Amino acid sequence: MPRRHYVGLVLHTPLPIPVVAWSDDRHTVRILDQRLLPGAEVVRELSSLEDVIDAIRSLAVRGAPAIGVAAAMGLAVALRHASARPDDATGSGAIARILLPTFAARLIDARPTAVNLAWAVQRMVACAGAAPDHALVASLLAEADAIRAEDVAMCDAIGAHGLALIPDGARVMTHCNAGALATAGIGTALAPIYAAHARGRRVHVYANETRPLRQWARLTAWELQRAGVAVTVLPDGAAASLLRSGAIDLVIVGADRIAANGDVANKIGTYGVALAARAHNVPFHVAAPWSTIDTATPEGAVITIEYRDASELGELPRGVATWNPAFDVTPSALVTSYLTDRGFVQPPFAA
Amino acid sequence: MPRRHYVGLVLHTPLPIPVVAWSDDRHTVRILDQRLLPGAEVVRELSSLEDVIDAIRSLAVRGAPAIGVAAAMGLAVALRHASARPDDATGSGAIARILLPTFAARLIDARPTAVNLAWAVQRMVACAGAAPDHALVASLLAEADAIRAEDVAMCDAIGAHGLALIPDGARVMTHCNAGALATAGIGTALAPIYAAHARGRRVHVYANETRPLRQWARLTAWELQRAGVAVTVLPDGAAASLLRSGAIDLVIVGADRIAANGDVANKIGTYGVALAARAHNVPFHVAAPWSTIDTATPEGAVITIEYRDASELGELPRGVATWNPAFDVTPSALVTSYLTDRGFVQPPFAA
Repeated sequence: MPRRHYVGLVLHTPLPIPVVAWSDDRHTVRILDQRLLPGAEVVRELSSLEDVIDAIRSLAVRGAPAIGVAAAMGLAVALRHASARPDDATGSGAIARILLPTFAARLIDARPTAVNLAWAVQRMVACAGAAPDHALVASLLAEADAIRAEDVAMCDAIGAHGLALIPDGARVMTHCNAGALATAGIGTALAPIYAAHARGRRVHVYANETRPLRQWARLTAWELQRAGVAVTVLPDGAAASLLRSGAIDLVIVGADRIAANGDVANKIGTYGVALAARAHNVPFHVAAPWSTIDTATPEGAVITIEYRDASELGELPRGVATWNPAFDVTPSALVTSYLTDRGFVQPPFAA
Repeated sequence: MPRRHYVGLVLHTPLPIPVVAWSDDRHTVRILDQRLLPGAEVVRELSSLEDVIDAIRSLAVRGAPAIGVAAAMGLAVALRHASARPDDATGSGAIARILLPTFAARLIDARPTAVNLAWAVQRMVACAGAAPDHALVASLLAEADAIRAEDVAMCDAIGAHGLALIPDGARVMTHCNAGALATAGIGTALAPIYAAHARGRRVHVYANETRPLRQWARLTAWELQRAGVAVTVLPDGAAASLLRSGAIDLVIVGADRIAANGDVANKIGTYGVALAARAHNVPFHVAAPWSTIDTATPEGAVITIEYRDASELGELPRGVATWNPAFDVTPSALVTSYLTDRGFVQPPFAA
């Protein structure tokens, strides 16, 4: 199984099932339902705006880049369906143009922290603005295609630039899933790992569980195992001890938003890992598409943090209060390097 | 509900169900099965050595002091039953004396990290050495009674000494369960909280979930709610962010073993919390019975850490490796103060 999807460094995806893809006729978007992994591999078809919002909000599709791709593709098919007349399923550009602002706003509202979602939707809105009515739906489909293809290329570029971080025998800790399942390609934080693995380097990944939804334990362990990369799962609370033990050479995490000063919003728990990495002089790298850098956000303190439902924390005594933020902010002072599809970059970041 | 179990500072327990108790005829030990909380409140009866070992190993009874009490009481009833002749259910002292070394060794072996288990069992062995055959079983029952009563008094003493840490309005983070469920009394880390609550001070406890077994989310939230203390549960990965936010005035945790130099073995995740507390200048207190201090252990690095089964981490892709230590070690440099039943103490500790 391991390497069948690899062709040199043009890896595209190590997964047998695309994370986000068109149906054959491009009337629906197919997503791999990540809520059900690793137990079941279920593909869902999305066609309405509600389908797409529900898939994003419920984390059936998750990971900032994948959310952006799914939102762009989903917006295109949702407008196509909503503007379709009985005699013409291709959709009406004039109607789609009227619906677009509402659809776009509702999509952006689905999850507030990830910058890629708003970025992808705004790009679709700009595309619509430049297209004539008769070509509007086709233009949106093509723009979503472009966003998806760029995401694949972005991942490959991060992998190629990040190869230098992963020598043979590297022992890498990461947090949450910033892998193939979080993108349309080979991932962001995991891209250098897949790239090194494809070159024949031995890599061992230590996967923090990432409560409450256990993205890393469920998703990253699943995809790394699929790709033939050695992986060990640990509870979040064990990360500091493992970093102290000397068993980890470097940490790589993804990012949901990077502020102009380099502060990094990422899955809850990342900040604690960064503190422990610093305490034990383990390099802490952030890998993300350049588009994750939000120069309009001066610093981490002003990033909106999404809070999620108590039910995600599992069985609790009835009525007990919970504090369940989806993200935290790691200050730039704790980040060793920023790896993007444009190579290694350093803050402050300007537009 | 809240205060019915409180009489001044002689709190004994805020729980309606004893954590460890004799049956009426002292032929069995009754434990509240903590694996089933908060969903079900089930009391199990232990009579054989296998029952007691299984209850300790499976975490039906857990928390270092409670394990010590359960081991002492369990050793007494197990020897009573194993040495009983058909015509005399009180047990034979001569036979019990022969069985004692094996029983003691097997009990100590049930969990390696907590010092209280070995301490309680060794005290029972010493008691047996001083008792004549005809009084041996009765002496062991009495010694276990004494260990239990001392545990209750120990908790009350920690609560009384620790009151000074908890002003009105205090916002306290803790990790794992070092509460009433971990002892025969009002707990160790939670003892000052119960004491302050009984004095009418408002206290808000922030409860790290403590994966993999979620002791804090399940157990501490359950007992604090029972006692009428405000409690908020958060995932372990959110602790660093909460400490950074300024919402926490102090951290109190328990300990499973404290080395002579002050290094603290406690539930996995404690070390990461200590690092984050230090990074944000939040005081980090360790509350434990004096018996938890193991002067024979010079430093944390030589403490045996127990590793637990992968199944505790929940659903994972088949065959994936796990790293699942039950405990970590927090270096003494990160500990603001050590609170014991003898008051506040400072390392180095001598016998």
